[in-house]
Amino acid sequence: MAYSVAPLDRLCEQFERLPGIGKKTARRLAYYVITRPDDMAGKFSDALLSAKAKIKYCSVCQNLTDGEVCSLCSAADRDRSVICVVEDAQDVMAFERTREFKGLYHVLHGAISPLDGIGPDQLKLRELMARLSDGTVKEIIVATNPTVEGEATASYISRLVKAMGIKVTRLAYGIPVGGDLEYADEVTLSRALEGRKEL
Amino acid sequence: MAYSVAPLDRLCEQFERLPGIGKKTARRLAYYVITRPDDMAGKFSDALLSAKAKIKYCSVCQNLTDGEVCSLCSAADRDRSVICVVEDAQDVMAFERTREFKGLYHVLHGAISPLDGIGPDQLKLRELMARLSDGTVKEIIVATNPTVEGEATASYISRLVKAMGIKVTRLAYGIPVGGDLEYADEVTLSRALEGRKEL
Repeated sequence: MAYSVAPLDRLCEQFERLPGIGKKTARRLAYYVITRPDDMAGKFSDALLSAKAKIKYCSVCQNLTDGEVCSLCSAADRDRSVICVVEDAQDVMAFERTREFKGLYHVLHGAISPLDGIGPDQLKLRELMARLSDGTVKEIIVATNPTVEGEATASYISRLVKAMGIKVTRLAYGIPVGGDLEYADEVTLSRALEGRKEL
Repeated sequence: MAYSVAPLDRLCEQFERLPGIGKKTARRLAYYVITRPDDMAGKFSDALLSAKAKIKYCSVCQNLTDGEVCSLCSAADRDRSVICVVEDAQDVMAFERTREFKGLYHVLHGAISPLDGIGPDQLKLRELMARLSDGTVKEIIVATNPTVEGEATASYISRLVKAMGIKVTRLAYGIPVGGDLEYADEVTLSRALEGRKEL
């Protein structure tokens, strides 16, 4: 293209690296940030740097936190005998939104994926094992994603944890609430059938 | 929600201010930027600050540029007798992509919208008028958006420019190429009928 402005192009590139943001959207967002009258670019940049500087992994559960130990791990009212193992910090938020789970979490920061070069060593598994040594934990709920990578990770964890004599469970598979049976894929439907419960 | 991390929430807020980005997407993007291993937050922040610092309005056409005069206004091969007036800098990109228009541009940075408190004085109209004084410009193509605000702006500009004895044209209305007649709204269709051409 004949017309381009280098600093703007560089900003577009950063926006384009975000998941789900294409070339056109990136350009629109970059223009938006730059042309806002209230120094949005400055505020945005501050928020990025401050988040990057202050946010680290909780030394216990590896969730994102701005302290040494996250507010969930340090809360007095959580059940310390159950740990829900998830792939990402966002999954913790999803569980917290249910207001059902009262145990603790462990964030793996990924899933085993040999194609992407991610093996067990790249995940926060050592940190999970360390938490199991003192006998407080009675159950591990493996809540990795229902994908090939999530399944591989689940069975890997299951083997390790069972060897320590701790109960391992996996989230139930089935049809999503509010969904339409017609649109359920066959794998989900067979799993729902398999896991059927007496009424 | 029980669980929140202040610096992360502030970053989410900034993402949420972007057009078309909702609460959930903002959270996903914020997590993404923060958890990238290659200091994406730092690079993003640099790109924002550098764009903000270097990009200003072209002193001639008010388009975004990192110089004093933008590359379009300073190009030797553009037709200086035609100015295409647009609302935003992004519209310039859209015209440049057509590779059809060889004239110059003028970016208004908005459209007249009394409800939003935007009158003619908030737009780069004075700068447009200044460009018309030396008699070089023979035609003004008003390419504001086909919205109420865009129309109001177009008729305002038309009155001013015609008074100076300069030709004013407006983009053709009609059915979009590749569109389906069935889905064209009635206003567009009547305009397309009105503007029909002999084959």
